[in-house]
Amino acid sequence: MNWKAVLKILGKILIAEAAMLLLPIIVAAIEGENTYSGFLIPLLILFALGIPTYFIKANAEEKKIYAKEGFLIVAFAWILLAAIGAIPFVVTKAIPHYVDALFETISGFTTTGASVLSDVESLPKSILFWRSFTNWIGGMGVLVFVLAVLPRENSGIIHAFRAEATGPTVGKLTSKMGVTARILYAIYIALTLIEFLLLLIKMPVFDALTTAIANAGTGGFSVRNASIGAYNSVYVETIVTIFMFLFSLNFNIYFLILTGHVLKALKGEEMITYTVTVLVSIFAIALNVYLSSVTAINSFGDAMRYSSFQVASISSTTGFSSIDYNGWPTLSKVILLFLMTIGGMAGSTAGGIKMSRIMILGKSTSADIRRMVHPREIITVKLEGEPVHASTINNVRTFFVTWVAILIVCTFLISIEDYGDFLTNFSASLSCVSNIGPGFNLVGPAANFSGYSYFSKIVLSLEMLFGRLEIFPLIILFSPATFRK
Amino acid sequence: MNWKAVLKILGKILIAEAAMLLLPIIVAAIEGENTYSGFLIPLLILFALGIPTYFIKANAEEKKIYAKEGFLIVAFAWILLAAIGAIPFVVTKAIPHYVDALFETISGFTTTGASVLSDVESLPKSILFWRSFTNWIGGMGVLVFVLAVLPRENSGIIHAFRAEATGPTVGKLTSKMGVTARILYAIYIALTLIEFLLLLIKMPVFDALTTAIANAGTGGFSVRNASIGAYNSVYVETIVTIFMFLFSLNFNIYFLILTGHVLKALKGEEMITYTVTVLVSIFAIALNVYLSSVTAINSFGDAMRYSSFQVASISSTTGFSSIDYNGWPTLSKVILLFLMTIGGMAGSTAGGIKMSRIMILGKSTSADIRRMVHPREIITVKLEGEPVHASTINNVRTFFVTWVAILIVCTFLISIEDYGDFLTNFSASLSCVSNIGPGFNLVGPAANFSGYSYFSKIVLSLEMLFGRLEIFPLIILFSPATFRK
Repeated sequence: MNWKAVLKILGKILIAEAAMLLLPIIVAAIEGENTYSGFLIPLLILFALGIPTYFIKANAEEKKIYAKEGFLIVAFAWILLAAIGAIPFVVTKAIPHYVDALFETISGFTTTGASVLSDVESLPKSILFWRSFTNWIGGMGVLVFVLAVLPRENSGIIHAFRAEATGPTVGKLTSKMGVTARILYAIYIALTLIEFLLLLIKMPVFDALTTAIANAGTGGFSVRNASIGAYNSVYVETIVTIFMFLFSLNFNIYFLILTGHVLKALKGEEMITYTVTVLVSIFAIALNVYLSSVTAINSFGDAMRYSSFQVASISSTTGFSSIDYNGWPTLSKVILLFLMTIGGMAGSTAGGIKMSRIMILGKSTSADIRRMVHPREIITVKLEGEPVHASTINNVRTFFVTWVAILIVCTFLISIEDYGDFLTNFSASLSCVSNIGPGFNLVGPAANFSGYSYFSKIVLSLEMLFGRLEIFPLIILFSPATFRK
Repeated sequence: MNWKAVLKILGKILIAEAAMLLLPIIVAAIEGENTYSGFLIPLLILFALGIPTYFIKANAEEKKIYAKEGFLIVAFAWILLAAIGAIPFVVTKAIPHYVDALFETISGFTTTGASVLSDVESLPKSILFWRSFTNWIGGMGVLVFVLAVLPRENSGIIHAFRAEATGPTVGKLTSKMGVTARILYAIYIALTLIEFLLLLIKMPVFDALTTAIANAGTGGFSVRNASIGAYNSVYVETIVTIFMFLFSLNFNIYFLILTGHVLKALKGEEMITYTVTVLVSIFAIALNVYLSSVTAINSFGDAMRYSSFQVASISSTTGFSSIDYNGWPTLSKVILLFLMTIGGMAGSTAGGIKMSRIMILGKSTSADIRRMVHPREIITVKLEGEPVHASTINNVRTFFVTWVAILIVCTFLISIEDYGDFLTNFSASLSCVSNIGPGFNLVGPAANFSGYSYFSKIVLSLEMLFGRLEIFPLIILFSPATFRK
């Protein structure tokens, strides 16, 4: 284990978070809020921990990063970021108990958006900004940020990048990692800005800004208690619906469009499958809700309005809400649970298993069944026209088995306390591992996670981290074999 | 495709079912019931379909059975058996509608035990006997029966045997298939007889017989409306609990014990893991139920009594009940759902994924994670001290992915009608694919499946067949590639 390399990169990440804490301080200054100490204390801690790592001397060999170091950097980085990022909530007494604040911060950075707060509208704006900003930071990933601003390149850092990026098919857009990271961030910032400007038309500046950044990260922390439903505006809902969908697409698509390959971008197999899934779900839920004559939905138009928002919100794993879907019929709930499982596309800011993994699971399984009937036939699994390597298939299956195990074990663990019914606990666990936010019943869109015990909140926090980091970095961190010589 | 071979074996299976229909006719004669026509009509149909196949002339090449033929024989056999075995219910008007009768018969043969009947006590005893007897026939499998009575051996028939037997690790007990089948049936009959005799002490003859045969097949069809709870006897519950556990063990264990290898039988890895899982679940549920002060459970002794019965019933996938567990706390429900997923041991009459598959999933996944950290280390997955071949691991993973897909798709399909809440539909789907019987809420132990539409009943019937035949025979039957030249 090259500990020096791990420490040096962790140091850079801590300094990056310190820089990010300057933004809520600016908000506090503009709004004239007395919340400075809440942000300055963690900022100083980050400096105190980060600066010394610049003085660690390491030779070329000691700076090398292999898969193991990559996983550990990412695992440590995210835990540290959340642990320190929770301090503002505690110091400002917005969330007095540290475990609650940690839950909220992990929920923010992992772009889950599950909250322990029942009344956000009473909180200082600088705190609300920081809360939504954690969604934005976590969406693209902190490591990508560091890569984007790092002057020189460490070839091994690809391992860390892979460990933080989402989905099985993330490649480099360009031959240089640093350039790729900068392009990704440029697209991310540009899309966020466009949404912000479009929202400004019907929203106050602060609401437009926080909604745009929480949306971009597919986090879903809102500054209003009733989430997007509070604005009661078809325009706002439409813009947010479109951008929730856009942020759940693979960022490669925007790169392809920018470089003139529009057709190639839109003809991708994952892109088409994902889009069709979203459209079919919207229509199915709208029809189901309309025919079941749910309260507050009086026309098919109404049904389409709420269905398209909710499907975009859940499939992109954002978790904004415009209505309480707990009253919807079972079929709609099953479709939403299904979308929660899939999540967005690989290489997006969305969570979940990811559409490309689902496709690889389906294709490899159907190939295996064909092989049973025709043992001598040669059957190749292809995705986007390219053969999928056996090791990729194996990785995806390992991911799936572990993902299901985490979902089940965490449902079990949060059921030890006698708080939620089965659907509450199952959907809470699924919502956290897929980084969505709301679930059903007691954790539905009109409710929050505050009723769980601290033990359950820690379980769910870990589950959010498992989901965002796609499982393996954390398992490797907790595995004794990692630290054995 | 060697159609002649398929037809010849199917013919023998149909004749075997005709022979089995003689038993309820004897029951009708003893009880003086006027139900003869109900059994004679299907008996004549079976003869009419079965006898002609004996006159099909096939040379050695045409008689050969490969994997594809094996899967198809099993798929056709089970569908035919159920389709004709449902006739007695319709003719005697015990279950007037054919779809309901088919659901009940498939539930019987697949040893699920899910019922559409709310009042079984009013039915003729010959019908109740046939209903419970389908559990017994389905438990060991019809093909095994044919193999046991077949005079000469077809070497290829191992493919069909594999397709019907449960679990990934079923081997031949002896070098000859026919001998293996006869040993299996001998153990099965002996255990059933012992249970019957033990139950006679506290039960009427008819109840003891039907309970013993429904228990042996891990089916769980009871002749009392309140299932085993109706006898209100600790003695009966204890005997049934013990035998539910015994029938969920791999039958190899009894073969090993009979041949003097007692220690080897009890030291098996799957055996120990399964037993520990059952014991821990019993204790955890008892404690949970006791501490939550559920109605009707007043002491820890009571809690242990109901918990051990229910855990044995669910983990063996029998589905008998002694109490309505719908009132139990969420943790107990989650544990029961977890046990429903695992099911019994491979090579038993139980359903579910099977403990050995769960172990292979767990071990191969943890090996994959180790390989990520130590790419150059050679890591072997072992079960029962033997290395598990990569193709076995792949098969188990293919099985798991398909199993989860079926569970989800069927939950979706039965949610199209707006009947059950999520837990009802999810547990109904899980209960059917794992061949258990009861689920939760509207399909709980005190309720039944009659409220579902015929569409949902057909979906659930198919799911029971998928579960009993361990998925692949049916998928291959429905796959167009199978019948392509």
